[in-house]
Amino acid sequence: MPKSTKYVAKIPNEQGFIDYTPEEDAVWSDLYAAQIDAVEAHMARPYLDGLKKLNMPQSKVPQCPDISEALTRETGWKVQPVPALIGFDKFYGMLADRTFPAASFIRSREDFDYIEEPDIFHEIFGHTPLLTDPRFAEFSNAIGKAGLKAEKKDFSWLIRLYWFTIEFGLTRENGELKALGSGLASSKTELPHAVLSNEPTLRAFDIEDILRTPYRIDIHQPIYFVIEDMDELFAAADRDLMVDIKAAQAKGLFALVYPTVEKKAS
Amino acid sequence: MPKSTKYVAKIPNEQGFIDYTPEEDAVWSDLYAAQIDAVEAHMARPYLDGLKKLNMPQSKVPQCPDISEALTRETGWKVQPVPALIGFDKFYGMLADRTFPAASFIRSREDFDYIEEPDIFHEIFGHTPLLTDPRFAEFSNAIGKAGLKAEKKDFSWLIRLYWFTIEFGLTRENGELKALGSGLASSKTELPHAVLSNEPTLRAFDIEDILRTPYRIDIHQPIYFVIEDMDELFAAADRDLMVDIKAAQAKGLFALVYPTVEKKAS
Ligand SMILES: [Fe+3]
Ligand SMILES: [Fe+3]
Repeated sequence: MPKSTKYVAKIPNEQGFIDYTPEEDAVWSDLYAAQIDAVEAHMARPYLDGLKKLNMPQSKVPQCPDISEALTRETGWKVQPVPALIGFDKFYGMLADRTFPAASFIRSREDFDYIEEPDIFHEIFGHTPLLTDPRFAEFSNAIGKAGLKAEKKDFSWLIRLYWFTIEFGLTRENGELKALGSGLASSKTELPHAVLSNEPTLRAFDIEDILRTPYRIDIHQPIYFVIEDMDELFAAADRDLMVDIKAAQAKGLFALVYPTVEKKAS
Repeated sequence: MPKSTKYVAKIPNEQGFIDYTPEEDAVWSDLYAAQIDAVEAHMARPYLDGLKKLNMPQSKVPQCPDISEALTRETGWKVQPVPALIGFDKFYGMLADRTFPAASFIRSREDFDYIEEPDIFHEIFGHTPLLTDPRFAEFSNAIGKAGLKAEKKDFSWLIRLYWFTIEFGLTRENGELKALGSGLASSKTELPHAVLSNEPTLRAFDIEDILRTPYRIDIHQPIYFVIEDMDELFAAADRDLMVDIKAAQAKGLFALVYPTVEKKAS
């Protein structure tokens, strides 16, 4: 069987709006309510400022055109629904075009606490606040542009730079560890794991180290990178990331630190 | 970010043929060569008979119309390329229509030994031989028809019946354990794990038990079900599977037996 999912992308109408059912709106509302206190306690300033600027609805699934209007005003970005699985070439191409590709379905209640595929709660609640910040907007765009120049075999290298910053980056505010990444903003269990548990290894933001660090999508990250100064992202956006990728490839991946199970070869 | 992959579905031309590059044909050829000896040693008769009937090319990626021609002759089935991720509703709908949905891309050489998403080697080499057998063809069709009647919340229950038979079923021939499932036929490491290692738990084919058994896609299965007599599949195809699903749901899932890692909630 091909990879299958019970989730199907929602197709927007000609104005870009999507019809969500009352139950889907209720799931959004409950996800928002379940997450907002931890987010206010542990997410970093750039995220929280963005969340305020977007002023998204709390009791129903936000619509991409509404979020896009605010994003465009702030940084020239927009957000656009895509199928539940997209190719890296499309992903990078859209970032290069300052368009954030968003899965459009929302998880069902039985997947309230865990869903493997990113859903619109992750995409909108998790991602769009940071895209109101010029440093994250520029950095995301730079990754997209690098992706346009990359070959297929480089895609899985470049994505690690996205993963350890936009998805799972940390920072510090007045000495206190705070979360930046969207994957933390939208995760009930990983947010406290990342900033409170003292379990993960914290490493300094370094592009080559990030490119060489393997990750798994289905477990709490055992390693996070700490971006002490957001202007490092501007600096990173000015680099030739393909040169960094070649350098990382020459040195090779770091050893895995996560628990391994007997993986199958299919 | 939405779920992303470096693999993009190949689009067939109007005659249903797909252009594979010489390198892609070479990957097929090497996968076939790497797997055929173990398959001949450990796969069951129905699979091996099917493989012979299909007479698929060994040195280039087979084309769906060619495979379909043989399948149609044997059991009225055909095989059709689909996107890399499809909804369960589409999956069941196609099975109900005696059409096997096949991912159309082939893995790259760096994923030679392990790829999370099923590729066309798994689909054609793994799946299509069994579809020449009327018992597997009928049983697959019955699962599709049940899926048409199922609600969304039942999809993940019904799929377990497919998983533990078509994908990972075992049988016995002259007292010797043999593999039936396509996920075993296409896996270099899981085939010997399943039939030779004595590590897995073997259970008797029982629809309710199967429906209640959780699985993970990314590890070698710790539990297999043994179909002693293929006619059990004909009998299963005559059942009202929705009644079985309701019964299984009432009793609930069995406890997990596989190693767990700290799963994230996203
Ligand atoms: Fe399969
Ligand atoms: Fe994301």
